[in-house]
Amino acid sequence: MSDDLMTGTARIPGTLASRAAALDAQDQLAALRELFALDDGVVYLDGNSLGALPRHVPARMADVITREWGELRIRSWDESGWWTAPERIGDRIAPLVGAAPGRLVVGDSTSVNVFKALVGAVRLAGEDRDEIVVDATTFPTDGYIAASAARLTGKRLVAAAPGEVADAVGPRTAVALVNHVDYRTGRLHDLPGITAAVHAAGALAVWDLCHSAGALPVGLDAHGVDLAVGCTYKYLNGGPGAPAFLYVAERHQAGFDSPLPGWNSHADPFAMTPGYAAAEGAVRGRVGTPDILSMLALEAALDVWDGVPIEAVRAKSLALTDFFLECVEAYVPAGRVTSVTPEAHAERGSQVSLSCADAHAVMKELIARGVVGDLRRPDVLRFGFTPLYVSFADAERAARVLADVLADVPADMVTEVPADGATDVLSEPAG
Amino acid sequence: MSDDLMTGTARIPGTLASRAAALDAQDQLAALRELFALDDGVVYLDGNSLGALPRHVPARMADVITREWGELRIRSWDESGWWTAPERIGDRIAPLVGAAPGRLVVGDSTSVNVFKALVGAVRLAGEDRDEIVVDATTFPTDGYIAASAARLTGKRLVAAAPGEVADAVGPRTAVALVNHVDYRTGRLHDLPGITAAVHAAGALAVWDLCHSAGALPVGLDAHGVDLAVGCTYKYLNGGPGAPAFLYVAERHQAGFDSPLPGWNSHADPFAMTPGYAAAEGAVRGRVGTPDILSMLALEAALDVWDGVPIEAVRAKSLALTDFFLECVEAYVPAGRVTSVTPEAHAERGSQVSLSCADAHAVMKELIARGVVGDLRRPDVLRFGFTPLYVSFADAERAARVLADVLADVPADMVTEVPADGATDVLSEPAG
Repeated sequence: MSDDLMTGTARIPGTLASRAAALDAQDQLAALRELFALDDGVVYLDGNSLGALPRHVPARMADVITREWGELRIRSWDESGWWTAPERIGDRIAPLVGAAPGRLVVGDSTSVNVFKALVGAVRLAGEDRDEIVVDATTFPTDGYIAASAARLTGKRLVAAAPGEVADAVGPRTAVALVNHVDYRTGRLHDLPGITAAVHAAGALAVWDLCHSAGALPVGLDAHGVDLAVGCTYKYLNGGPGAPAFLYVAERHQAGFDSPLPGWNSHADPFAMTPGYAAAEGAVRGRVGTPDILSMLALEAALDVWDGVPIEAVRAKSLALTDFFLECVEAYVPAGRVTSVTPEAHAERGSQVSLSCADAHAVMKELIARGVVGDLRRPDVLRFGFTPLYVSFADAERAARVLADVLADVPADMVTEVPADGATDVLSEPAG
Repeated sequence: MSDDLMTGTARIPGTLASRAAALDAQDQLAALRELFALDDGVVYLDGNSLGALPRHVPARMADVITREWGELRIRSWDESGWWTAPERIGDRIAPLVGAAPGRLVVGDSTSVNVFKALVGAVRLAGEDRDEIVVDATTFPTDGYIAASAARLTGKRLVAAAPGEVADAVGPRTAVALVNHVDYRTGRLHDLPGITAAVHAAGALAVWDLCHSAGALPVGLDAHGVDLAVGCTYKYLNGGPGAPAFLYVAERHQAGFDSPLPGWNSHADPFAMTPGYAAAEGAVRGRVGTPDILSMLALEAALDVWDGVPIEAVRAKSLALTDFFLECVEAYVPAGRVTSVTPEAHAERGSQVSLSCADAHAVMKELIARGVVGDLRRPDVLRFGFTPLYVSFADAERAARVLADVLADVPADMVTEVPADGATDVLSEPAG
């Protein structure tokens, strides 16, 4: 190894590349990459939008479709365990977010679960509390749904940046909804501290874990979080649009009063009685018949986590983003990009966001050269680091290609951003 | 052909069997059966709960999972058409329920769509109308969700049997929610007449099409239905828990104000603005990121409908249920079963429900002998007839095996029904 490896001041490609190789050689999680369908020609840094396919999922889904649906048909609700999948898969995810069994249930989209959690929290908080505090920097859907929940429950909506939530909550606050990791900047918010501040005001804390579940330890039970929702198609690799999860703390389960009381959350669904009686436990968060194909793809995808401690994932995530930032600093001329992701580990999720002039043209060219990140309008290049399959060599290559692209895309070039409403490959569903 | 075929008075097995063969030989839809994965040893009469697997779906899903997710990954939102799937698939279903393009959108469960439709209808009806009328015989989830919608919008819930809805609606009624076909009895309700009566009272009509979509003509546009929801995993064969659809009449689209305004229904979702601005058209019924695997299995499954007029499906459905009732009458000793499904064609959906002592034991034995229907507690045997793949020979065999089973299960035998809350193979998710 060269001295550069020791000093960390490498400024030439070969040296950072050799450090990447050394870091990969030491990586305890490196072998997990083989579990995923990945193309060595591509550096996939969009797992914070859509996780890569675990290699064993197609065979499992072929069996689900051909045998469980095609041959057993209706019998599979019982014999193939379809009926209990929402709570069974919830229990698979639970240890990754620090929850005991019986507190998570999987089903519906994140947006729908935000609605259940917020209205449920408002009801738990009681009539005399008339405000819903919502993260002012939230992924938009949470804000839209929070506004709807406020309107339907007759509450006032108050927007506050996560750093201001502790000051914004008070005796009128019913609930505060906060994102654990900011989808745009990758900033990690202080879940224990904000939760404690919300509790000190007598209110409930609802956390959106879309960008932290599967990327870092969450500690839902340990930190006394009241309710939480999260996404399964990002760091949990559950497949496109895989169902989200809902967490309800044990102390709230008996009082949780869902605004979407479907027949699947009934204490005795097959009695088919006209009167509603809520089931006990996590099942109470269910609504209608679960989308089995998406759900069982997620269940299969979770196999890659067997024996993988989330703490090890976090350690690698921070090492990867540290190294990527170092490579960017080394390769990219000063002033061309600015990181909007915090340097402090305690404030960083598992992505790096770089603001950049002509971000649209730059990301388009990055993708053309095999480095897949995405764009958040108007000027943010997002690079997600999934520790299960991203290597240090990937990080080094991504930074190097970014520098090449920036050398070829003049700083003052003006490019056209797609018209409003247009979908384009650079800004796909992600949150 | 024998005289029995002409007179229709056959009372011996051989003759009904030969009539079945003749009817199958004349059946214009008979060839469609080959499109489905079916076992000739089994008569599958539970397609009103979970439709059979179209044979081509596994190959399509292998491509979706392996290539679209596994290789294209995030690019598939654009390149594989994932993003626009909800409205594209809505347009595929539209002709089957008599809707023009742009009025249906697919996504979320039936329960969640009932919530959108009811709250949306209440808002369209205006503040001065304070009652929600709900079908007293409804599949339970609609009633539970209607109660939640009433509670959240401050309205009063009024239960009325479909036949009494015309009398129950009045100047206070905002909306009436009615099932097109009763899940338990198979009774078809008068959609044009009830809709007209609801409109005469100045209210909106929301129809639940779970047991009619794909089984008979609905005529949503022609009859001026305001909003509707429907299931895609029964007669549309979309797969277990496939997403439901929401219909909003063209005249209501601009005013439709969803209680679940997720980022997918925003006019410009990728602008990610904190303020909500609803999209135009059917897209306004979307909420969060769609469950792509379940959705694309449904899209593939709809291929079996290419060139199949719903009127032909209806004609075969009535012929099948007529013939099954005739066979039951011929084979089953008088008094052992009673049809709770109306005889009149205008009042019959695509299933036959027979009340029967010891229904649980009888259905268990029927399934053991290769005739798959299901049970609705306490005493209803349900037999669903999916005209795309059920034959007249199936109907004859089902009635014959039922007679055999009843001969072997004494009329006074007492069997144990599974404990409350237990799932069992006889009463699976269906609606």
